[in-house]
Amino acid sequence: MAVQHRVRDLSLAPAGRHQIRLAEHEMPGLMALRERYTASQPLAGARIAGSIHMTVQTAVLIETLVALGAEVRWASCNIFSTDDAAAAAVVVGPSEQGGTPEDPRGVPVFAWKGETLEEYWECTDQIFRWDGVDGPNMILDDGGDATLLVHKGVEFEAAGAVPSAGEDDSEEYRVILETLRRSVAEDGQRFTRMAPGIKGVTEETTTGVHRLYEMQRAGTLLFPAMNVNDAVTKSKFDNTYGCRHSLVDGLNRATDVLIGGKTAVVCGYGDVGKGSAESLRGQGARVLVTEVDPICALQAAMDGYQVVRLEDVLDQAHIVITTTGCKDVITAEHLQGLRDKAIVGNIGHFDNEIDMAGLARVPGVQRTEIKPQVHEWTFPDGHSIIILSEGRLLNLGNATGHPSFVMSNSFSDQTIAQIELFTKPDEYPTGVHLLPKHLDEEVARLHLDALGAKLTELTKSQAEYLGVDVAGPYKPDHYKY
Amino acid sequence: MAVQHRVRDLSLAPAGRHQIRLAEHEMPGLMALRERYTASQPLAGARIAGSIHMTVQTAVLIETLVALGAEVRWASCNIFSTDDAAAAAVVVGPSEQGGTPEDPRGVPVFAWKGETLEEYWECTDQIFRWDGVDGPNMILDDGGDATLLVHKGVEFEAAGAVPSAGEDDSEEYRVILETLRRSVAEDGQRFTRMAPGIKGVTEETTTGVHRLYEMQRAGTLLFPAMNVNDAVTKSKFDNTYGCRHSLVDGLNRATDVLIGGKTAVVCGYGDVGKGSAESLRGQGARVLVTEVDPICALQAAMDGYQVVRLEDVLDQAHIVITTTGCKDVITAEHLQGLRDKAIVGNIGHFDNEIDMAGLARVPGVQRTEIKPQVHEWTFPDGHSIIILSEGRLLNLGNATGHPSFVMSNSFSDQTIAQIELFTKPDEYPTGVHLLPKHLDEEVARLHLDALGAKLTELTKSQAEYLGVDVAGPYKPDHYKY
Amino acid sequence: MAVQHRVRDLSLAPAGRHQIRLAEHEMPGLMALRERYTASQPLAGARIAGSIHMTVQTAVLIETLVALGAEVRWASCNIFSTDDAAAAAVVVGPSEQGGTPEDPRGVPVFAWKGETLEEYWECTDQIFRWDGVDGPNMILDDGGDATLLVHKGVEFEAAGAVPSAGEDDSEEYRVILETLRRSVAEDGQRFTRMAPGIKGVTEETTTGVHRLYEMQRAGTLLFPAMNVNDAVTKSKFDNTYGCRHSLVDGLNRATDVLIGGKTAVVCGYGDVGKGSAESLRGQGARVLVTEVDPICALQAAMDGYQVVRLEDVLDQAHIVITTTGCKDVITAEHLQGLRDKAIVGNIGHFDNEIDMAGLARVPGVQRTEIKPQVHEWTFPDGHSIIILSEGRLLNLGNATGHPSFVMSNSFSDQTIAQIELFTKPDEYPTGVHLLPKHLDEEVARLHLDALGAKLTELTKSQAEYLGVDVAGPYKPDHYKY
Amino acid sequence: MAVQHRVRDLSLAPAGRHQIRLAEHEMPGLMALRERYTASQPLAGARIAGSIHMTVQTAVLIETLVALGAEVRWASCNIFSTDDAAAAAVVVGPSEQGGTPEDPRGVPVFAWKGETLEEYWECTDQIFRWDGVDGPNMILDDGGDATLLVHKGVEFEAAGAVPSAGEDDSEEYRVILETLRRSVAEDGQRFTRMAPGIKGVTEETTTGVHRLYEMQRAGTLLFPAMNVNDAVTKSKFDNTYGCRHSLVDGLNRATDVLIGGKTAVVCGYGDVGKGSAESLRGQGARVLVTEVDPICALQAAMDGYQVVRLEDVLDQAHIVITTTGCKDVITAEHLQGLRDKAIVGNIGHFDNEIDMAGLARVPGVQRTEIKPQVHEWTFPDGHSIIILSEGRLLNLGNATGHPSFVMSNSFSDQTIAQIELFTKPDEYPTGVHLLPKHLDEEVARLHLDALGAKLTELTKSQAEYLGVDVAGPYKPDHYKY
Repeated sequence: MAVQHRVRDLSLAPAGRHQIRLAEHEMPGLMALRERYTASQPLAGARIAGSIHMTVQTAVLIETLVALGAEVRWASCNIFSTDDAAAAAVVVGPSEQGGTPEDPRGVPVFAWKGETLEEYWECTDQIFRWDGVDGPNMILDDGGDATLLVHKGVEFEAAGAVPSAGEDDSEEYRVILETLRRSVAEDGQRFTRMAPGIKGVTEETTTGVHRLYEMQRAGTLLFPAMNVNDAVTKSKFDNTYGCRHSLVDGLNRATDVLIGGKTAVVCGYGDVGKGSAESLRGQGARVLVTEVDPICALQAAMDGYQVVRLEDVLDQAHIVITTTGCKDVITAEHLQGLRDKAIVGNIGHFDNEIDMAGLARVPGVQRTEIKPQVHEWTFPDGHSIIILSEGRLLNLGNATGHPSFVMSNSFSDQTIAQIELFTKPDEYPTGVHLLPKHLDEEVARLHLDALGAKLTELTKSQAEYLGVDVAGPYKPDHYKY
Repeated sequence: MAVQHRVRDLSLAPAGRHQIRLAEHEMPGLMALRERYTASQPLAGARIAGSIHMTVQTAVLIETLVALGAEVRWASCNIFSTDDAAAAAVVVGPSEQGGTPEDPRGVPVFAWKGETLEEYWECTDQIFRWDGVDGPNMILDDGGDATLLVHKGVEFEAAGAVPSAGEDDSEEYRVILETLRRSVAEDGQRFTRMAPGIKGVTEETTTGVHRLYEMQRAGTLLFPAMNVNDAVTKSKFDNTYGCRHSLVDGLNRATDVLIGGKTAVVCGYGDVGKGSAESLRGQGARVLVTEVDPICALQAAMDGYQVVRLEDVLDQAHIVITTTGCKDVITAEHLQGLRDKAIVGNIGHFDNEIDMAGLARVPGVQRTEIKPQVHEWTFPDGHSIIILSEGRLLNLGNATGHPSFVMSNSFSDQTIAQIELFTKPDEYPTGVHLLPKHLDEEVARLHLDALGAKLTELTKSQAEYLGVDVAGPYKPDHYKY
Repeated sequence: MAVQHRVRDLSLAPAGRHQIRLAEHEMPGLMALRERYTASQPLAGARIAGSIHMTVQTAVLIETLVALGAEVRWASCNIFSTDDAAAAAVVVGPSEQGGTPEDPRGVPVFAWKGETLEEYWECTDQIFRWDGVDGPNMILDDGGDATLLVHKGVEFEAAGAVPSAGEDDSEEYRVILETLRRSVAEDGQRFTRMAPGIKGVTEETTTGVHRLYEMQRAGTLLFPAMNVNDAVTKSKFDNTYGCRHSLVDGLNRATDVLIGGKTAVVCGYGDVGKGSAESLRGQGARVLVTEVDPICALQAAMDGYQVVRLEDVLDQAHIVITTTGCKDVITAEHLQGLRDKAIVGNIGHFDNEIDMAGLARVPGVQRTEIKPQVHEWTFPDGHSIIILSEGRLLNLGNATGHPSFVMSNSFSDQTIAQIELFTKPDEYPTGVHLLPKHLDEEVARLHLDALGAKLTELTKSQAEYLGVDVAGPYKPDHYKY
Repeated sequence: MAVQHRVRDLSLAPAGRHQIRLAEHEMPGLMALRERYTASQPLAGARIAGSIHMTVQTAVLIETLVALGAEVRWASCNIFSTDDAAAAAVVVGPSEQGGTPEDPRGVPVFAWKGETLEEYWECTDQIFRWDGVDGPNMILDDGGDATLLVHKGVEFEAAGAVPSAGEDDSEEYRVILETLRRSVAEDGQRFTRMAPGIKGVTEETTTGVHRLYEMQRAGTLLFPAMNVNDAVTKSKFDNTYGCRHSLVDGLNRATDVLIGGKTAVVCGYGDVGKGSAESLRGQGARVLVTEVDPICALQAAMDGYQVVRLEDVLDQAHIVITTTGCKDVITAEHLQGLRDKAIVGNIGHFDNEIDMAGLARVPGVQRTEIKPQVHEWTFPDGHSIIILSEGRLLNLGNATGHPSFVMSNSFSDQTIAQIELFTKPDEYPTGVHLLPKHLDEEVARLHLDALGAKLTELTKSQAEYLGVDVAGPYKPDHYKY
């Protein structure tokens, strides 16, 4: 029988419930979906294995999926990102269900802040264990770990054995192999039976989407996948507007340093970089941009930013932020060349945007904790720099991540994508699909009222003139917004 | 034998040459292409029939095509848009060729400001008449008129006769039929012989591209076409940055009214609307936005603009600008409801965005010219509104259109697209193609130096990490910039 | 008997009247003053000698003064700044007075575009010649020329002779001496009789105010003066918001060069510099600032601009604008060091901000007119720069000066200042006075409605709490806005 | 003998010292003053009684005063604003002095977070008790409490008795009377002897300055006072740039609500309101402004903000911020009319800008703490609003107040003002003085290097032309920046 939940402390549930209630107000998209679909229960029969940061916003997503008829099991997709109160509240369930810490009636969650890697993969494994059935029939994923487990499980079960980790394999991959080795030992056909029943996965992020396209190209993808990441209401909103909000928030909470008047370098002018540059300019900083892509570089110039190479402005930069998704964007050499007390942070992606390993290898460098997630690294010549969140995402480490309203967009995309894949299997064969544009537009539409925005309606004659339907979609697929 | 040119006055050539020289400085993309390709002459053998507004910027484009080896014949794509001095200068040719008004050595041009419709189509017809050959082997088009003439020519030659105009046909279509009737009378196989020799067309605008996709769908497209309009360096630059520049320019030249402190409504928040809103905000106006597309509406809200319906804010708006590409965006009813001396203009597309015909039908309305392209329409109750450029594009009518630097981007796209279609026929079968991303990036790259922007180069290891080539392209096709 | 007017061509009057009507709509402050004061005629008995640029906006001012009861005679304060149509319309008078070009019934004006220095001072002399009385009893001045003539006249009449010009005296001073020599020859007590009857002068600009304070310090000031220039509704509005509007307007009309993406240097970050920098940033330029005053420099930095020395960025600057009121801000050496085709203009004050004389002395430099008020100066090495308006004010030379709405503020200040000095001689002894704050506030109040701005009213209890009157003034005198 | 210090816990000193070191890097003005004046010791002989929030930044100020030769005793000027670690570090002293918690060698401080009113006034009393002398010879004040104690002490000592509190007197005034009653009982001439020895007070804030001007008008001021509050480098920097920083910081830490796309009302468009509006706009909010002063209202309109009355937009506002210094700006009626979950905060001044008392009296209203300093007030109809910091200053209550760089400006003003009053008694008679402009400029100058800003120097000839000294001051006194 499947374990029913594993969180830090169920007594935190009331505090979490309070925050969930406030977040619901800032997530009009999800609340509108509840209102629209509670009667018809489009997810009735869906068994969703979910793997996304177990935050307050995710709690609202989970309870929306349940309100639409789904059964759900949940793990976090990051060892640090769980809000223990939110997790507890989800397990206990909404008050109208009468759950209590002693008698929880909510959703099984397997997540707490500060898991070990072993615990993390055990938790992920748990979302695939359902009482009385072979597993979930839907996956909701962020980064692709849940999807990976199924694919690797099927692969190794077919091979009859889980291989040993190679010399170059990461610590995490060893843990994954170990997890699967236990699974195979217990039941050598578990994922093999499960995979055909999975109607699809909806994937939240660039990284996860990248893995999906690779599997599609390699012909190994086992079920349909919806690329939620590239919905406009996700990529442009989460990345640009979310980071515009959380970059200054993270800088302020971490350092209390005045941003106005400072010289800030934003490495990368993609969606995240655009929001970051606007965030800093809005506070009165002088913003410089580095870019490798000439189109984005030209956009930065046309938006009034000086486009430079990082190595040319090390002595001017008070603040350097990476937003790229690339590695070694700030090298150890760059770091040593920065002016005294320069602040360095990453709002881009993995923690290798800043070469933290290289920094740690600089002879004589000393690391001092100023406060949690804020460290001063002092070089032998006495000058020092401030590194935020040890090079990991500063908006998560130094602030509280994306605000609810932004997440309401991407989580509405997720919910709608789940409905699509679950209810229209014929329209989505195995492969990676973009969210249809009319659904992307629908998610935007659900968020206008809360902002007081009034949409104009096309007349029938105007729609005909444009060659579109009155109800949309309004733009060709290659439109760039 | 083909007529060799038809412009207003060749003695204007020196004045035009002077302006061309200044424009060259602001068109670094085209000048870089000259430098790169003059030796290899990739367009040697190309006979280009060009139909784009015969402006100073187009002169630099034409002379770039010639520098790359092409033979060129040119007409304007609009009866009003020719700069007579530029046209004369192109005909006379660059000074190093020793041409004079008496002995012109430049390019045959058929264009002058203020053509009649009959003259316009005669001019277009002229670019297809080449001495000793069946016609051009390339078309460079803006709006699709040149392309239309070939397709209709082929169609009617196959039918054996040019049909009579129907009751509902526009005045212009009657002229087209008349033009073709003369052609067929003269040579019934002229376009039928010409079409197979045409290696392709490169198309500049939304409208022309729309026609091409329709022909592709209908199976009637006769040769490969390159959609230059949707290159990022065209759509985002020309539309957004070009209009950011020319909207305030047009308003200022037309009215001299202070924009700061005024309430301005921007109808539409696409690429043009985004640039327009930024333009007005940059001058201190309070900007409201109307939208039919919920994604664009949400973007407007997130950018801090109030999203309204036009009918709700008529009494607040000092300035109303359409940017949509749709018709009847401002109806005659809207116009009558506007506050006294409200300024109304269109920077979007056709002149039916504002219902000028409906306005003229309002009983008792009076139209007074304040100065050319600026009219006051006074209603019977005594209040009046100011209409710019009679509802046509205000940045062309009241200002001078897009600045050279912006056109350098789209014209570099054009030049590169011509090279692609002419030199790689195997890669582009009949159909509509987007400009390959690496060429789009190349065009951006050619404009960075002039702005002092320094591009960062990926290391090989970074490129591998990202799964891209060091030289690009850097982004997936669905990337939205 | 006094000459009754001298303008270019009275037949231009209808065109001027048309523009005056449109300007009235954009000058709500003046129109509100007419409405408020036409009944009480506070300026009845006032004979105003006015010397301000004879533009359309000034026409609205003049007719406001007349509507309030004044008799007026007018000259321009600059040889180039007259709008001939506006001047004609003022002379003919508003249509309700039934004036015609043949039978003008308006105000005597002495101004036309392109006066010689001799003509200019003759015109200024004319505004002091009134039939049957010794002269005006009020002066409305811009730059102090009218005030200077009276003071010098009194001085030389007392001395019994007009001195000869010295070697170092400017050409203009020679003309002034000549003008006065003729006056003294004609009537040796003319200004001596006139001065005691003058109740005061209201002065528009920094330069004129500077002269007034110098006379006050020297004890030579002959009558009360109101410093209109330093009213908040003048200095902050005219300088900052006016230049924000007219800088891009002037650049666009002069050059048609895309401002977005360019690097622009604004020399000076006072009121004019602040508006100029905002203007350029609003168009997407990267803006650098130079400053000598550390407070303004720090403000520029805190507003996100890079603060530099001009000599350090000559090779980066596409556009350089002076806004300082100082001389030699851009030296001939600076000019030679600028990059090819750099655009240089002055929106600050006198034409010595840019060392045009020094530029003309550079060996081998060549000056070519591109169009009126736009010149290319080519250096012997072949590179060239573009100078706007020959170094004079580009917003006047290349655009149309401040828009009506801005002028409505300063001209309302002028009108109110005239009323104050004329009706309350006891409150304003000889000396220089600032406009009382409650009148400054009143002028602002008169402009809110037209912008749709709704003012909140203090409750009595709030006013008491703040220690102010419900009706204002609301701020201490040292408040900086 | 005077007590030597009273802080929470000296073992916090190392943590405080660490923060002081980081703050020093962000306070270049104070550090430059140390460098400049350590040798000459201009404050040798000064005994400064200081009363300002005992924060990390104040620690840097205190140690600067000591470095310049002063003896110092310090209290906080607010019961909540002490940073206990900073206070401890100041008492222990900089490490080079070898102080330890057991053997402190720093400055006597009397301050801890969360004092009672009685404790607060005892602490203030302590800064006037010096071993072996009658008291301090200088006061550094914020809000005027230290100055008040001396003046009331002198008054009551002269009267021979401390009066009883009246019915309408505040609780705090009763405590003050009690404190003075004890003082008089102990020594009936204490303040009478002390006051003549006080060379002056330098006052930080509007409120304190207001009290000083009132005493000046009433003829009761006992010694010279310097109005630091109205230095440009204080009023414009602290108010505008400080609040631009701390408003979004406070909102983010308090609510984690996305600001982008929201409608925010800023009540007041003075220095604080200008910074607040910019702060919100920089995050993508739509910003509305309310104003009572027509000049500020017109500025808001010209800056592109809609100027409204609060009662007209209650249903649109997601966020309402007061910035006025007035009372009852948001009434209980306003509060009840706001939309559900509207966020309400005060960044202006006293906690009566929002009528918290009126809110508490609304029948049936319920107050729930969401987290410290964030409360949800739920009305009987079920809708609720979020109040930050119980209506007190949100940037102090929900964030960390002004950043160090901003405080470096006003504290450099303070330090220089102390030097002026202490070393030039002849230049500053009893009365309230503004900081001389050249010193204001000097403070700005000290902050340019840290931002990389390069100041241009006037040539001698330019300075003469402008009629200023090469070294400044550069502007007339009425200049508004």
